[in-house]
Amino acid sequence: MQLGMIGLGRMGGNIVRRLLRDGHTAVVFDQNPDAVASLVAEGAVGAASLEEFVSKLDVPRAAWVMLPAGAITEATVAKLGDLMASDDVIIDGGNSFYKDDIRRAAELKPKGIHYVDVGTSGGVWGLERGYCMMIGGDTDALDRLDPIFKTLAPGIGTIPRTPGRDGRDARAEEGYIHAGPSGAGHFVKMVHNGIEYGLMQAYAEGFDILKHANSKDLPEGQRFDLNIGDIAEVWRRGSVVSSWLLDLTAGALAGDENLTDFSGFVADSGEGRWTLNAAIEESVPANVLSAALYARFRSREDASYADKLLSAMRKGFGGHVEPK
Amino acid sequence: MQLGMIGLGRMGGNIVRRLLRDGHTAVVFDQNPDAVASLVAEGAVGAASLEEFVSKLDVPRAAWVMLPAGAITEATVAKLGDLMASDDVIIDGGNSFYKDDIRRAAELKPKGIHYVDVGTSGGVWGLERGYCMMIGGDTDALDRLDPIFKTLAPGIGTIPRTPGRDGRDARAEEGYIHAGPSGAGHFVKMVHNGIEYGLMQAYAEGFDILKHANSKDLPEGQRFDLNIGDIAEVWRRGSVVSSWLLDLTAGALAGDENLTDFSGFVADSGEGRWTLNAAIEESVPANVLSAALYARFRSREDASYADKLLSAMRKGFGGHVEPK
Amino acid sequence: MQLGMIGLGRMGGNIVRRLLRDGHTAVVFDQNPDAVASLVAEGAVGAASLEEFVSKLDVPRAAWVMLPAGAITEATVAKLGDLMASDDVIIDGGNSFYKDDIRRAAELKPKGIHYVDVGTSGGVWGLERGYCMMIGGDTDALDRLDPIFKTLAPGIGTIPRTPGRDGRDARAEEGYIHAGPSGAGHFVKMVHNGIEYGLMQAYAEGFDILKHANSKDLPEGQRFDLNIGDIAEVWRRGSVVSSWLLDLTAGALAGDENLTDFSGFVADSGEGRWTLNAAIEESVPANVLSAALYARFRSREDASYADKLLSAMRKGFGGHVEPK
Amino acid sequence: MQLGMIGLGRMGGNIVRRLLRDGHTAVVFDQNPDAVASLVAEGAVGAASLEEFVSKLDVPRAAWVMLPAGAITEATVAKLGDLMASDDVIIDGGNSFYKDDIRRAAELKPKGIHYVDVGTSGGVWGLERGYCMMIGGDTDALDRLDPIFKTLAPGIGTIPRTPGRDGRDARAEEGYIHAGPSGAGHFVKMVHNGIEYGLMQAYAEGFDILKHANSKDLPEGQRFDLNIGDIAEVWRRGSVVSSWLLDLTAGALAGDENLTDFSGFVADSGEGRWTLNAAIEESVPANVLSAALYARFRSREDASYADKLLSAMRKGFGGHVEPK
Repeated sequence: MQLGMIGLGRMGGNIVRRLLRDGHTAVVFDQNPDAVASLVAEGAVGAASLEEFVSKLDVPRAAWVMLPAGAITEATVAKLGDLMASDDVIIDGGNSFYKDDIRRAAELKPKGIHYVDVGTSGGVWGLERGYCMMIGGDTDALDRLDPIFKTLAPGIGTIPRTPGRDGRDARAEEGYIHAGPSGAGHFVKMVHNGIEYGLMQAYAEGFDILKHANSKDLPEGQRFDLNIGDIAEVWRRGSVVSSWLLDLTAGALAGDENLTDFSGFVADSGEGRWTLNAAIEESVPANVLSAALYARFRSREDASYADKLLSAMRKGFGGHVEPK
Repeated sequence: MQLGMIGLGRMGGNIVRRLLRDGHTAVVFDQNPDAVASLVAEGAVGAASLEEFVSKLDVPRAAWVMLPAGAITEATVAKLGDLMASDDVIIDGGNSFYKDDIRRAAELKPKGIHYVDVGTSGGVWGLERGYCMMIGGDTDALDRLDPIFKTLAPGIGTIPRTPGRDGRDARAEEGYIHAGPSGAGHFVKMVHNGIEYGLMQAYAEGFDILKHANSKDLPEGQRFDLNIGDIAEVWRRGSVVSSWLLDLTAGALAGDENLTDFSGFVADSGEGRWTLNAAIEESVPANVLSAALYARFRSREDASYADKLLSAMRKGFGGHVEPK
Repeated sequence: MQLGMIGLGRMGGNIVRRLLRDGHTAVVFDQNPDAVASLVAEGAVGAASLEEFVSKLDVPRAAWVMLPAGAITEATVAKLGDLMASDDVIIDGGNSFYKDDIRRAAELKPKGIHYVDVGTSGGVWGLERGYCMMIGGDTDALDRLDPIFKTLAPGIGTIPRTPGRDGRDARAEEGYIHAGPSGAGHFVKMVHNGIEYGLMQAYAEGFDILKHANSKDLPEGQRFDLNIGDIAEVWRRGSVVSSWLLDLTAGALAGDENLTDFSGFVADSGEGRWTLNAAIEESVPANVLSAALYARFRSREDASYADKLLSAMRKGFGGHVEPK
Repeated sequence: MQLGMIGLGRMGGNIVRRLLRDGHTAVVFDQNPDAVASLVAEGAVGAASLEEFVSKLDVPRAAWVMLPAGAITEATVAKLGDLMASDDVIIDGGNSFYKDDIRRAAELKPKGIHYVDVGTSGGVWGLERGYCMMIGGDTDALDRLDPIFKTLAPGIGTIPRTPGRDGRDARAEEGYIHAGPSGAGHFVKMVHNGIEYGLMQAYAEGFDILKHANSKDLPEGQRFDLNIGDIAEVWRRGSVVSSWLLDLTAGALAGDENLTDFSGFVADSGEGRWTLNAAIEESVPANVLSAALYARFRSREDASYADKLLSAMRKGFGGHVEPK
């Protein structure tokens, strides 16, 4: 079937490619004409403006927005809402905040436009492996878009089936779910990313402990020089900590075990923060997910004000002067 | 080759079975004669005492101890040390504390006995999938035992090779490593379990947030009834949080999403604690791994003294009386 | 000077009492006529409705709202905004969210009404000891209200002056500050409460460790039966952990060291949550303040879903069955 | 009465001074002859060696060791054990690990020497304010030393009595307790310091949030430039977060609110670590105390290996390249 795509960055571009490969058609638009030209060369229909983009879509239209969350997505959805008509579908495949989805769906409803939010995981691997999708919206829109989702999803592949799932929604095994009404897709994706942060930090702390196993803080005769790369590799086979993130870690450590090319500065996107906000709103304890986010905050500071204040208190009470 | 096995529980028994299947021979001993008889029926040579066990082993001997960490392992290793001779090998495949390994290796060294510690991951799945092994000890002993480890390990199997590992120790890809001198195997396994706790808690918190997405603490119109089982399933395909632990989670949730058969009481074995002790000794921050362990401690209390004290302070300052 | 007070609960009533004692006058209103009558008997002027309340205030009016944060405060401020006139002052002395203050101040500004937010600490002790106040609003309004704040604040009293403060704002030493524009008062009070949670949890964890010093988890010969009440008492004198919260703790433990009357259920008001939201919004790590809040969340659950999920994973991987 | 003091640093020297002021006598020894001479000039009896020190003490002897915890204290106690005789008392007033106290007391018992461990809080303020002391040992030794403890302790002073303490051990109100047998004093002091870390970190995080209230991460119109020094000051009066640590914080902030003289490097002594080890051994959750210690660990690293590993994973999955 036909899908319109707005935003032809790494994610949007590859989604279009995966669709074209499987026989779907696409109308594409991006602020950057080169990005449009590139996909036109691969078989997509290009548009030079949002207006042209909408006009080239078959009715009822399906337009996927794949832009950075925030102002640009907000403005694009709003403009699409003006240009499109009843029974059309707007899909936000980016990382929008789920409360924005709920609001937008309500705003578009009087006009009869369906709003579908798709949380998309897969990173740079999605083109080949497929995208894991968590989808919010009404059933009519989702049913209509099903061929798109089926193509984008990884499918069952070689991953063993989970025992006991007979009779349950088969789409989950294909790699996509209808999570609930508008907002539910991004809500699930948000928590997904919160978990991702926690998993990453668990590995990071563990490897940090392994790396410091030869620390001079340890008694002599109780220190080890460990081969961190080999450890990551061996855990990939038969160990309960095996995972995709561990595969990636093993890959990074195969290159340079000391990770000297990395500065130690770690960014975060919004989802980890929103996950904590949700936990707080629900009164659910989330020590691990919080610690994972805070570690990233801390990584971006040289000397925190909090730390300086500790030194000031230590000096005031015990006369301690910290080394510089 | 021949291996002696002391302790024929789930782990020890299955290790012997996997060895027998691959053409090795085994001498076995257990306090429980039925356990011995059962493996004799499967082709092992049985022994009715430690003395008989040692006498039936070919020289130089290789004796694997697979008993609960602590007093019984300690006593068994000590007695084996008395019964065995120079160039024999004692293998502790249980979950001993690595500082005990270091001490035992030093105690056995004057007599010429090799001490090898093997951290073994694989759980109830090891018989079929193979065991991931982290091994400490001297190179001579490890080289001699290599056929055993090769059989027990999962092998490369269908898991893709990590790019960039050419020229590195190939055993890691087979599923076992020589981590370092005595103690290094259990040290690495200890941190492995510490990471495992962190990963588990990251998932647990995330699913808890998903489960409470319909909480009455949330504003109306911003609540979702999510299908937790489908979410676990979909993340197994193409998502960055996919892992073996997630596979197991999906399996549990396919049965009963509400987990009503579980009491909420969560035990811990020693490794999570020792991992934190190591982090503290090394001055490495480990907020996530700590929070994971503390969540288990807390799960085993009904009303903590700490919580009561908070209520007492609240009453003293603000006159607040907590509900019962 | 004259102050109007709406909401005559423990806090509002005692604020009026402290003002009357010092020669100020008060017009009071509460949904509960008995509360009004009680303060009228102590010298206040009573009102039977918001309209009557406003009509009895001298122009320019000063009306202090001391109601639970949320819908009732919101509605009362809105109605006062309708009833009052240019140059009047509305004071919210409750625990409102600071973003609500910012919004309300902006809504009232076109009409010329000043909006002042006062974060008030002092609990049940404020009547005698005075209230510590963190105030947001414009300077004109605050200057006019200064006699009120001066009476309500504790004053310097017997607390030693902080060296080096000469030339700084003397009001801080009296026990009140002009923190900034509208919202700043409640922002500072919010963080104050976030810190309070952290301090309380630090004591709670420490006393929990002391209480369990006789745990059977500890090796024999390394256990202590400690007198928790005496420990709290001795730390009040000369120790760096002395504080008002410790005084309250010592008081509670002097009664019943085992705190058997407390259920272990610990409530939280909004400020701890908002403090974390602010930390997240500012990208400031707040592990301690988060852990303090999450401990309260956890105290209110019997068996958390997260814990059950951990057990389910343990069963799936290792075949472990948890005790009930 | 007479007390011998070994170690005339800030703590040991001031303890002697406080004793001399109150009419006690002292025999003193230090590796540094100038430190000895200085106290001799103030009225103490000096010794040039441990042997001379012991010979100058009246029988039964009381020798207080005030040296850094670890090897030097260990060696000094051992040598004193050789030099002293039955019914003498050795007091360790430093920050020894309580398990060392238990061992030493057992080692000295056959010779009839009493071993008393004193956890001492008071910092540089102890000379004037007195020392808060938590004492472990047998009752006979403590009764004999009571005049010393009474002089060193702050006494009731102007701090209000805790209601409900009538009939309880009056020494707690004086500022010292008999916590239990040998080791109990340092155990209580250890937890005291663990709590201290937690309290300090709670303030540090809170002030960090206040300091960043003008962060550009916040929406315009929702930022505040707060006067951190005034906030610390105002909380000292009537607020529930008032404490000695807050007094010290207010003092530091009165000087330079930006704390530019502090590097952000924060040391830790052993007690915070031991407190966590105790919590882990007792199975008591201690998220706040752990986070407080880990913040100090983190403050001493520029770019942690854990952080670099996070960046490596992010690059592997999403192609993200972190800024340097």
